[in-house]
Amino acid sequence: MNIAKRMNLLGSETAFAVSAEAAKLGSTGKKIYPFHLGDINLPTPPTIISAANNAIKAGKTGYCPSPGIPELRETLAKDVGSARGLDYGIDNVSIQPGGKPSIGKYIASMMEKGDIVLYPNPGYPIYESQIEFYGGIAHPYGYVNSNDGLRLDFDAIEAGIKKGGKHIFYNNYNNPTGASSPDEEMKRLAELVIENDMFLISDDAYFDTLYDGQPKSIASLPGMYDRTLTMYTFSKKFAMTGWRLGGAVGPKDIIEQITRLNVNMESCTTHFIQHAGVAGLNSPKAETKAIIDELKDRRDVLVEILNGIEGVEAHMPEAGFYVFPKITGLMQRMGFKDVEEFRKAVLNETGVSFCCRHHFGRPLEGETDFYIRMAFSGISKDDLQEGMNLFTNWIDSNSK
Amino acid sequence: MNIAKRMNLLGSETAFAVSAEAAKLGSTGKKIYPFHLGDINLPTPPTIISAANNAIKAGKTGYCPSPGIPELRETLAKDVGSARGLDYGIDNVSIQPGGKPSIGKYIASMMEKGDIVLYPNPGYPIYESQIEFYGGIAHPYGYVNSNDGLRLDFDAIEAGIKKGGKHIFYNNYNNPTGASSPDEEMKRLAELVIENDMFLISDDAYFDTLYDGQPKSIASLPGMYDRTLTMYTFSKKFAMTGWRLGGAVGPKDIIEQITRLNVNMESCTTHFIQHAGVAGLNSPKAETKAIIDELKDRRDVLVEILNGIEGVEAHMPEAGFYVFPKITGLMQRMGFKDVEEFRKAVLNETGVSFCCRHHFGRPLEGETDFYIRMAFSGISKDDLQEGMNLFTNWIDSNSK
Repeated sequence: MNIAKRMNLLGSETAFAVSAEAAKLGSTGKKIYPFHLGDINLPTPPTIISAANNAIKAGKTGYCPSPGIPELRETLAKDVGSARGLDYGIDNVSIQPGGKPSIGKYIASMMEKGDIVLYPNPGYPIYESQIEFYGGIAHPYGYVNSNDGLRLDFDAIEAGIKKGGKHIFYNNYNNPTGASSPDEEMKRLAELVIENDMFLISDDAYFDTLYDGQPKSIASLPGMYDRTLTMYTFSKKFAMTGWRLGGAVGPKDIIEQITRLNVNMESCTTHFIQHAGVAGLNSPKAETKAIIDELKDRRDVLVEILNGIEGVEAHMPEAGFYVFPKITGLMQRMGFKDVEEFRKAVLNETGVSFCCRHHFGRPLEGETDFYIRMAFSGISKDDLQEGMNLFTNWIDSNSK
Repeated sequence: MNIAKRMNLLGSETAFAVSAEAAKLGSTGKKIYPFHLGDINLPTPPTIISAANNAIKAGKTGYCPSPGIPELRETLAKDVGSARGLDYGIDNVSIQPGGKPSIGKYIASMMEKGDIVLYPNPGYPIYESQIEFYGGIAHPYGYVNSNDGLRLDFDAIEAGIKKGGKHIFYNNYNNPTGASSPDEEMKRLAELVIENDMFLISDDAYFDTLYDGQPKSIASLPGMYDRTLTMYTFSKKFAMTGWRLGGAVGPKDIIEQITRLNVNMESCTTHFIQHAGVAGLNSPKAETKAIIDELKDRRDVLVEILNGIEGVEAHMPEAGFYVFPKITGLMQRMGFKDVEEFRKAVLNETGVSFCCRHHFGRPLEGETDFYIRMAFSGISKDDLQEGMNLFTNWIDSNSK
């Protein structure tokens, strides 16, 4: 049997390949410092675990409705709505096995073949993969350096709109860059979406991980309620990555189409886990705050160490699990020309494992700087410090 | 936003609509006798539940590899292999969130647009839906009555092959008809597949629910190992429908493609549930035998009652949860011309809820008989008897 041609269009999440490489090295006995994956090495809060156990005991082990149990749809509608000052109800929510499924299901539901779809690059690689798999034209937009962090490249966004862009993926509190939009930037993006009759998919995976202050969603801006689909996940805030629970939240017409795909693809999301999700949303804030506080500690330590290295520039991410330092200067002074070669050298010689810019999309025209992504969600603070010591020592011994 | 045109090609599982209709009537206080859905009203065995709890406690709550944890892939390879006399290893297995996901993932991976794909009709409606969604030509084949059960309609199969059919879905121990292939029939099908260089997707959802004797898979026949993808599910045998755990088992090249889709669609199947799956496969046979014995009891009672009704002919299914009685004579003597009207009358007047032939595919040319599908997996034996009493009394009072 030949593989179908459409599979040539499908991309991947190459961060998983880095994980596999690290795991292989780890299996030889080498200690690995896992900065490569946005997984969480903290336990899921006990309220959620108890609720899952109770739901199993109560027999919530049979099928449930394809768009999710009504109780979770309602609770999530209220949670997402109140955090954004918006009014959502049960018909605005389709529960999914994770945050990721909403990407492909939106594309399949709403993107015609040949549509131009804007997406962040560097960004989560599945946007590009799903756009192209379903026959769309993926138009990347990057970030530009500013004094206080990375900013959306509006030149690239406007070029995509000029070509006829109809949909845009937007990942505030971006993975991998950690970039977040100041009010003015978010407002300008919303205006472009409205003026050009576009639709926006807001990947809010890290919305609830903002370390200080109140997170903001573009869905809250005037005119954007009907033009935004929010991708929600329980993975990050609740340390539930492996549970696979999330949801699409947005206009009813789109939610209905997404649910039709659920009927076809997986019938429903695991029944009793949805009850655990309800408990999570209703849980004492202290449980999730403990997760965020621990991550914030790690972030502060990591950014400080990185910025202490000559030739490394790291912005402080306001949310999320990732630091995205520019290492152009470091590579120059160490004599590296290829960042993948640099990554492999660090991994093999120190056990410190991280991803690079190219794991988050094809490099854009004119890119000359080198970046790596260091995730601090899957490594304890002690190991983080130990690993970074090995890393800086390795740099010192190998610098010219 | 307009909905994408491809969504016009997507079908559904209309049995869920019957469930919703029954639930709505039930919410008015009417007692419902649920014969409509292949859900199971028996608890998941305790070994599996304990294993899930232990895995959560052990922190199996983060991401795991997209094709599944190695331990489950190996255990499932061994289980599926030994039950079929075949040799499968870890590379032959991709774990999925249920049995259903393998349908669309096979189609997306291996079917070119315009390929002709044969599928059973009456049959599980998602085959047809996914074939057409990805731009294939769905060629139905039905069943013909024989003295000892329904038999594959080889005229329709050969017509599809003549047109250039490349893939065939085959659901031995068929849903909804309960039909199973005698050795000769299975052999004839395998020969056609091999002679015509086709590939077969064996939906083995009910393989492990055979009530007596050893189940048989077409994958075991000479020359079929490389031409069969087995759709495995934990749902039925282990009463785990709502857990969402299954797997695709077959040639390594196809498994690799299916896993690429997992990376894109849901990252991985719920981590700790995979440990529960390992425990299930290794569990004492008594636990699953108790489930099968209970279902067998219900089957025997139901078939006997049905065959006692004038104008009803029901075959005894060898496996699975469904009886598929022909009710042409009954409808005639009661003056019904439309089976959907009959279904609604029975539901509203007795609370007995079931599906009909048209919930399992568009009627074929020349079909004149009427069939309903009665599932006996989601109703206790007492309720089954009580419901069937109401049904037969209703028939008696409304017959001419």
